[in-house]
Amino acid sequence: MNILVCCDDNYIGPLMTMLYSLFESNQEDFDIYLAQSRVSEENTRLLEAYIDRLTGGRSRFFNIQVDKAFEEVGTTFYYTAEMYYRLLAFKYLPQDLDRVLYLDPDILVINPLRDLYEIDFEGAYFAAAPHKMPGTQAPNMTRLALASDKKGIENYYNSGILMMDLEAIRQDPREEEIISYIQDTPRLGSLMPDQDLLNVVYRDVIKPISEFKYNYDSRRTNFYRLTEDFVDSRHIIEEVSIIHFCGRDKPWHDRYLGRFKPLYDYIDKRAKEAASELREVEKLRQE
Amino acid sequence: MNILVCCDDNYIGPLMTMLYSLFESNQEDFDIYLAQSRVSEENTRLLEAYIDRLTGGRSRFFNIQVDKAFEEVGTTFYYTAEMYYRLLAFKYLPQDLDRVLYLDPDILVINPLRDLYEIDFEGAYFAAAPHKMPGTQAPNMTRLALASDKKGIENYYNSGILMMDLEAIRQDPREEEIISYIQDTPRLGSLMPDQDLLNVVYRDVIKPISEFKYNYDSRRTNFYRLTEDFVDSRHIIEEVSIIHFCGRDKPWHDRYLGRFKPLYDYIDKRAKEAASELREVEKLRQE
Repeated sequence: MNILVCCDDNYIGPLMTMLYSLFESNQEDFDIYLAQSRVSEENTRLLEAYIDRLTGGRSRFFNIQVDKAFEEVGTTFYYTAEMYYRLLAFKYLPQDLDRVLYLDPDILVINPLRDLYEIDFEGAYFAAAPHKMPGTQAPNMTRLALASDKKGIENYYNSGILMMDLEAIRQDPREEEIISYIQDTPRLGSLMPDQDLLNVVYRDVIKPISEFKYNYDSRRTNFYRLTEDFVDSRHIIEEVSIIHFCGRDKPWHDRYLGRFKPLYDYIDKRAKEAASELREVEKLRQE
Repeated sequence: MNILVCCDDNYIGPLMTMLYSLFESNQEDFDIYLAQSRVSEENTRLLEAYIDRLTGGRSRFFNIQVDKAFEEVGTTFYYTAEMYYRLLAFKYLPQDLDRVLYLDPDILVINPLRDLYEIDFEGAYFAAAPHKMPGTQAPNMTRLALASDKKGIENYYNSGILMMDLEAIRQDPREEEIISYIQDTPRLGSLMPDQDLLNVVYRDVIKPISEFKYNYDSRRTNFYRLTEDFVDSRHIIEEVSIIHFCGRDKPWHDRYLGRFKPLYDYIDKRAKEAASELREVEKLRQE
């Protein structure tokens, strides 16, 4: 299973916790691609050892220094901000990769992702979950319709969990649209430029997936009670594959009050213990 | 590490979840003693395979049919109700066992128990946590002082997590007091006869341990905020070794609303998956 993650040094901790949860709930061989420009060598080495250790040597880690990759191919994307890296995966990932699942670091994976990974794109290039909460959906769609001066935006998709059909995107990469969107963005003052980019440039080629199952917004349990038949904790733990800690308050903050904090802390603690054992081993090796 | 558990067929599910949490947070070799009289052979076989599988063959399972054990030694305890089994461990456990940790099935172990297991009894026979919440402590102590017609009860201890110095108990088993207590109990109408027995018969030989760390009452987070310096979820997950789901509402009930339910459900689901894989294997073997 090909997984793409993007982050900087500040998010290495949450990223490792997310990966821990992924490995715990998915007995798979993974190829993990980290797309970054500013992660320290120490952290990439640690990440490689961590992935190797947690998956018992069954997974591989690929560190892609995106600015260098773009420099080498002389692309116009050389100066692209990191926030767009996920959407440019088709440029820097190995050209024989057929599909990849992008995952944000602020999530917990608690059930298998195989069904999502094998999704039939039916002509779409991406698969993503719209966040249907009225307060999220309507303002974003209006803003995008105005900003992009285009219609045809039926859903506003969250880009934190994103299946990509890389073959399809390579056939129709829409590079010009991306560049012109990125160039115009500062003027439009977008809050979530990467997500907006997905929703504007690729709006007609995104297949919707279940928000409840694959992009459960941790703040919205009361909303899901309205849309799902039955939403108690057991049902969530059994049916939801990905809990997404959307918004500014994150579960690794002390003051976070969400209902999934004890679960996050439990998994986070184990992930940190695994990482700190590795750091000890690393230290011994260097002595 | 010697562990004692007691249950009937109805509690096999929670027991397996408790054991799963124990193995996940304690990398130890365990000798698990199940004291029972009514657990089906199918369930004891499953339990043995489960313990073997989850600990990678590093732990052993001992099924002690207590009524038979008592019959064989011709003891007066032959007709003892199962609720007293934990306190009679010194009679039916191997006589060379020096200490044992009794664990209720309605708990989650989330951190190491080694410190508790190696406790210095300092002359006491048991180590247990008093539940200090005023509403729990005062009525129980008054009731016991009246019922047992004895003074000297300084703490009311919860018997759900109980370290036993078996050697010390064997030196001074107090069998007559136990028998007379058990015979008098129906008349006294106790709610928690086993716990009361501990608190009456052995009241002078119980060493108090930290309630917060080893017997965290899941209903009492607001109380702990008063007694501990700092009680957020992360602190609990890092410092607490045992969460005890006291009271009538249990986290495996659908309608349970406690804050640790998502964590319980998460661990419970994994425990159930492990058990159901074993049942499949067992089925294949029989076919």
